[in-house]
Amino acid sequence: MTAIAISAPGGPEVLAARDCAVPDPGEGEILVRVAFAGVNRPDALQRAGAYPPPPGASPLPGLEMSGEVVAVGAGAPQDLLGTSVCALTNGGAYAEYCAVDWRHCLPVPRGLAMAEAAALPETLFTVWHNVFQRGMARDGETMLVHGGTSGIGTMAVKLGKLFGLTVVVTCGTDAKCEAAREIGAAQAINYKTQDFVEVVRDLTDGKGVELTLDMVAGSYTQRNLDCIARDGRLVTIATLGGREATINVGKMMVMRQTMTGSTLRPRSADFKALLAQDIRENVWPAVAEGDLRPAMDRTFALREAGSAHERMEAGEHIGKIVLEVAGEG
Amino acid sequence: MTAIAISAPGGPEVLAARDCAVPDPGEGEILVRVAFAGVNRPDALQRAGAYPPPPGASPLPGLEMSGEVVAVGAGAPQDLLGTSVCALTNGGAYAEYCAVDWRHCLPVPRGLAMAEAAALPETLFTVWHNVFQRGMARDGETMLVHGGTSGIGTMAVKLGKLFGLTVVVTCGTDAKCEAAREIGAAQAINYKTQDFVEVVRDLTDGKGVELTLDMVAGSYTQRNLDCIARDGRLVTIATLGGREATINVGKMMVMRQTMTGSTLRPRSADFKALLAQDIRENVWPAVAEGDLRPAMDRTFALREAGSAHERMEAGEHIGKIVLEVAGEG
Repeated sequence: MTAIAISAPGGPEVLAARDCAVPDPGEGEILVRVAFAGVNRPDALQRAGAYPPPPGASPLPGLEMSGEVVAVGAGAPQDLLGTSVCALTNGGAYAEYCAVDWRHCLPVPRGLAMAEAAALPETLFTVWHNVFQRGMARDGETMLVHGGTSGIGTMAVKLGKLFGLTVVVTCGTDAKCEAAREIGAAQAINYKTQDFVEVVRDLTDGKGVELTLDMVAGSYTQRNLDCIARDGRLVTIATLGGREATINVGKMMVMRQTMTGSTLRPRSADFKALLAQDIRENVWPAVAEGDLRPAMDRTFALREAGSAHERMEAGEHIGKIVLEVAGEG
Repeated sequence: MTAIAISAPGGPEVLAARDCAVPDPGEGEILVRVAFAGVNRPDALQRAGAYPPPPGASPLPGLEMSGEVVAVGAGAPQDLLGTSVCALTNGGAYAEYCAVDWRHCLPVPRGLAMAEAAALPETLFTVWHNVFQRGMARDGETMLVHGGTSGIGTMAVKLGKLFGLTVVVTCGTDAKCEAAREIGAAQAINYKTQDFVEVVRDLTDGKGVELTLDMVAGSYTQRNLDCIARDGRLVTIATLGGREATINVGKMMVMRQTMTGSTLRPRSADFKALLAQDIRENVWPAVAEGDLRPAMDRTFALREAGSAHERMEAGEHIGKIVLEVAGEG
């Protein structure tokens, strides 16, 4: 089969098509003929050598895909054969075939395009866990999300709105702010022309938001805490602005704020299975009804994975970028 | 009545006996003839001008006491009259009489000395909330506590042990380490001669503790995070080492750590009432059975409140310091 490999750590140009063996579905795995693969920021970090795959994972990039189940390993349900699924993978989705734990799959409902299905798992699993499980979001609360037009940002806006949150985002241009509002953000703040701390305080009558989903860290961390309400939560899922932050612990204490964060990929297969089950029960009905769709940016051919990364790293995208492999079929 | 007032912000010498009016028990309050008053670090901060009483609170120091109920205000249960109680107060406990929300009282069981009863509320409410409610401690976990011989530290050791935690403490001398072990600490680390991060890692086979209760902050914050396990929690309740801390948010995310903190005094009367009820149900049976007693340091006369503060601020005490007012009666 053809797959995209990382020839050496580096820029988008190190992504190269290679002829690889079709993987064997192991115990509890299914083999999927990939229709589309989603592109995510951790893929670019892995490509650059900054985010090595966990032990036992495929060295090939790609954390999510959609496709048709063409083989079923021992211990996986036989009736999945021939069905269309999308899945969170442990790497290896930038390929014609991908083996995945059957418990990390979700069925593709009628009306959901395979390109859209490939764009859901990584951001949906990440946002669901960090906003609702870890961040304990409840309906009626207000959430601040940075990178409002990113894959994560657009999913946080849509999922938050679906579950009764008011979502405020930051973006780097007025055009992106406009796009974020169209996607469902209640407010969008251009962080290059406005101080998001002040704007958030104004929008919340000085109280602050109950929850912030952050992918910046660094100098944003204390600013995030400064616009979180008493008893509010800050959940960090990436550190694009730097890993180190200076914070005021005394203020955190007086405000009874909570700060946490997580990464999805190193979690156990069992954890991801539980997360998939939770999503299947709580979110998948809305996907089946057509009430939740990913914000789609552009589709690239599998062999153009490098161009897809270039676009993502330039921050030109609004929503999700996907790679077409077998296509809608 | 005689009460101890803060004549001006300053050192222990500003605590002065004054003739004050006996407070009237308001709606929902009871009036207590004080037997003993507990001495706490926030009293010293208030005395120094660094921790002003919340709006509506007594300007007199003293956050806990024991005594006999001598009057019952409108809306408070009449049958409390004549009973012995201990209570978390909103200030004003360094006095012959103190008015307090009846819901913030707990009955003094037979066998508990009034001096001990006065020494329980502030540390018990603080540790219960921060370790079990906010810190989500579960039996079988290991907790690190700084200031192992302080009022909070000794309560954390005793309460933690009572609920199945293994408690590791830090102290500033070998003698204090020995005292902390006698009180119930599984391990005591002399922070002046040992690196507590290394010792905690060694003690936990490199995994770290599940929970740390910190009253230092500043340079301790990242060190605390460095010896907390994956999915561990850091709860800060004071910032004796400084309010500002530089932390590694990326590591916090990878380790899925949670950091939070709180202060007790500004909480609503309703919150404190719920906390008292939770303690009455979950902890008070152990107090009644004699299974939980505060570690007692020394007793000073009410008029010697300044000397009591000197002793506390010099860090000479092991356990709780109390002021004798009417005494065991």
